[in-house]
Amino acid sequence: MALIEYADAPPEVRAVFDDIKAARGVADVNNFWKALAVHPPTLKRTWESLKQVMAPGALDPLTKEMLYLAASAAAGCAYCTASHTAAARAKGMTEAMHGELLAVLSMAAETNRLAEALRVPIDQGL
Amino acid sequence: MALIEYADAPPEVRAVFDDIKAARGVADVNNFWKALAVHPPTLKRTWESLKQVMAPGALDPLTKEMLYLAASAAAGCAYCTASHTAAARAKGMTEAMHGELLAVLSMAAETNRLAEALRVPIDQGL
Amino acid sequence: MALIEYADAPPEVRAVFDDIKAARGVADVNNFWKALAVHPPTLKRTWESLKQVMAPGALDPLTKEMLYLAASAAAGCAYCTASHTAAARAKGMTEAMHGELLAVLSMAAETNRLAEALRVPIDQGL
Amino acid sequence: MALIEYADAPPEVRAVFDDIKAARGVADVNNFWKALAVHPPTLKRTWESLKQVMAPGALDPLTKEMLYLAASAAAGCAYCTASHTAAARAKGMTEAMHGELLAVLSMAAETNRLAEALRVPIDQGL
Amino acid sequence: MALIEYADAPPEVRAVFDDIKAARGVADVNNFWKALAVHPPTLKRTWESLKQVMAPGALDPLTKEMLYLAASAAAGCAYCTASHTAAARAKGMTEAMHGELLAVLSMAAETNRLAEALRVPIDQGL
Amino acid sequence: MALIEYADAPPEVRAVFDDIKAARGVADVNNFWKALAVHPPTLKRTWESLKQVMAPGALDPLTKEMLYLAASAAAGCAYCTASHTAAARAKGMTEAMHGELLAVLSMAAETNRLAEALRVPIDQGL
Repeated sequence: MALIEYADAPPEVRAVFDDIKAARGVADVNNFWKALAVHPPTLKRTWESLKQVMAPGALDPLTKEMLYLAASAAAGCAYCTASHTAAARAKGMTEAMHGELLAVLSMAAETNRLAEALRVPIDQGL
Repeated sequence: MALIEYADAPPEVRAVFDDIKAARGVADVNNFWKALAVHPPTLKRTWESLKQVMAPGALDPLTKEMLYLAASAAAGCAYCTASHTAAARAKGMTEAMHGELLAVLSMAAETNRLAEALRVPIDQGL
Repeated sequence: MALIEYADAPPEVRAVFDDIKAARGVADVNNFWKALAVHPPTLKRTWESLKQVMAPGALDPLTKEMLYLAASAAAGCAYCTASHTAAARAKGMTEAMHGELLAVLSMAAETNRLAEALRVPIDQGL
Repeated sequence: MALIEYADAPPEVRAVFDDIKAARGVADVNNFWKALAVHPPTLKRTWESLKQVMAPGALDPLTKEMLYLAASAAAGCAYCTASHTAAARAKGMTEAMHGELLAVLSMAAETNRLAEALRVPIDQGL
Repeated sequence: MALIEYADAPPEVRAVFDDIKAARGVADVNNFWKALAVHPPTLKRTWESLKQVMAPGALDPLTKEMLYLAASAAAGCAYCTASHTAAARAKGMTEAMHGELLAVLSMAAETNRLAEALRVPIDQGL
Repeated sequence: MALIEYADAPPEVRAVFDDIKAARGVADVNNFWKALAVHPPTLKRTWESLKQVMAPGALDPLTKEMLYLAASAAAGCAYCTASHTAAARAKGMTEAMHGELLAVLSMAAETNRLAEALRVPIDQGL
């Protein structure tokens, strides 16, 4: 799959890359954005959404990043698991926190499967 | 699917039900446990694991519960989503926090799919 | 969703329904086939494939049925889980065997998730 | 991702590795366990659960292993599919049995998708 | 789960509902939007993205709707399958086209599973 | 995983390979078929089904191929995504069409997850 580098990118792609680099204080964008640049409207829409969703709010940035990691790992996306593990570490996830996140993730997988295999009816009142 | 009530349960099932009720301070166990009681060794193993995994540690109980919810929702388990949404609320997840969790979850789904559909290579160093 | 009953079915659908009833010794076909009858070529192709795949071979019918159940439950299909649980019981799966199948299923879900979240490299020689 | 070798492992990890090697009669543990060693409580809990679940019972070891493989392949876990294919072969799965397992797996995928896409109602009595 | 009706909605939710109704020429919005209204920023962001993505472009509206349906059905989302089947029909999907879409969907499920279970290496040049 | 080349294939495998090469006008079959050749009955059944499903009908070949790609990408199959992207391009999918397909795919992933996480009830009449 083609990765589009800054030097080869059209102006509307460069504008998004510039915004990502400024927002994150990084010298270059991740491969994800370089791949997404094949379709500039999707690149722009995805980045605008992500920026809005990951901004500080009722949840702190580390919690948001760990939720992102949990959802990505539960969905089995290898690229996403790798990059959000790194992002969560950069935001303060320790080895011990990572270990507990993995434990919660694996228990969820186990009980999700059991609840579905047994077709458990949702508890009254929920 | 059969749900096994306390009154009809054999002693090894009652022992697990009693432990769940004591640990959670509830009058009755959820349907999940009543369904799992069809296989007492799996009931016991699952509860022992869950108790260990969800105990306070490097992550606080609310964060663990929200991670459980995110993983369950990402896996599309309706029962699990319903019960862990309720559990997270009981542990302090506000409407605003829930809204942001949903936003992170949906962004993760979107970017997971894009990363896979574009077969993005994992960034160097990760 | 529409379910097409035998009385309302065109000849090419009736022919498949007749073959299913004869092969299984049942008075009526399951809802799955009645739903699939909206597209007769898919109905016919699916039934022909299924008949071939589930025929006795190197694996006995009960093992095949339990594998079908495990795959369906792992994929989270509620209808399929319900119908293949019933089919496996009809072919001799006891309560204890069902319990162990569920235990294997839930362990697989747990270790699948961990292997992916940790991006474990495939062992040499495999 | 880091793989923790025996020589570099803390005592509680070595104890689990020793138990795995003894139980399986192997000289070294698989990468899965070396990766899991980053979180010793999860390593220990997962191994204890697996040992209990895979012990001989109402289902024989080969059937359990093939169910594990079917669930892992249905969940799309590449590492798990590779290692449980090897494990099933070691326990007696022939080429013909493997072929039939794949056939069941693919039929399940096909009918799972159809049942969900058509939203087939569960048959009465199930 | 709460569904928020127009009469009970705050102004920023009503504004989105009004835009959906105008864009689609409908008297009321679907349950999806009423449920999403619990988090107004996610409601607004999702609708704005959807409006942009589903606008006419290189692909015609019916093809886009059928792709949406295929992706939703492949992901096993019952609500989404129901609503996008209805939307595709409204845009001109005939019974025959629906049948062929289901056939493609089920073949994809089957071959996806086989390619993963056999760990087929990607063909050179792709 | 073993790939079976034409030169090493038994007659019933060669017959299928020949038919694929003739139908597609290619000099060699894809790795998928070489891998599937480990189980000749599954090879033959899968090819016969695929040939029937992908034949021109109410949907044109390009639309079918893009639906196949959308379903494969939604299921997260890397091999399938790679090969059906190439196949769709060969049948006329432009860069712009591919971009819009990715956009639809990612919106579907996002709204699928939200609909499930909010347990949205299916709209009346559907």
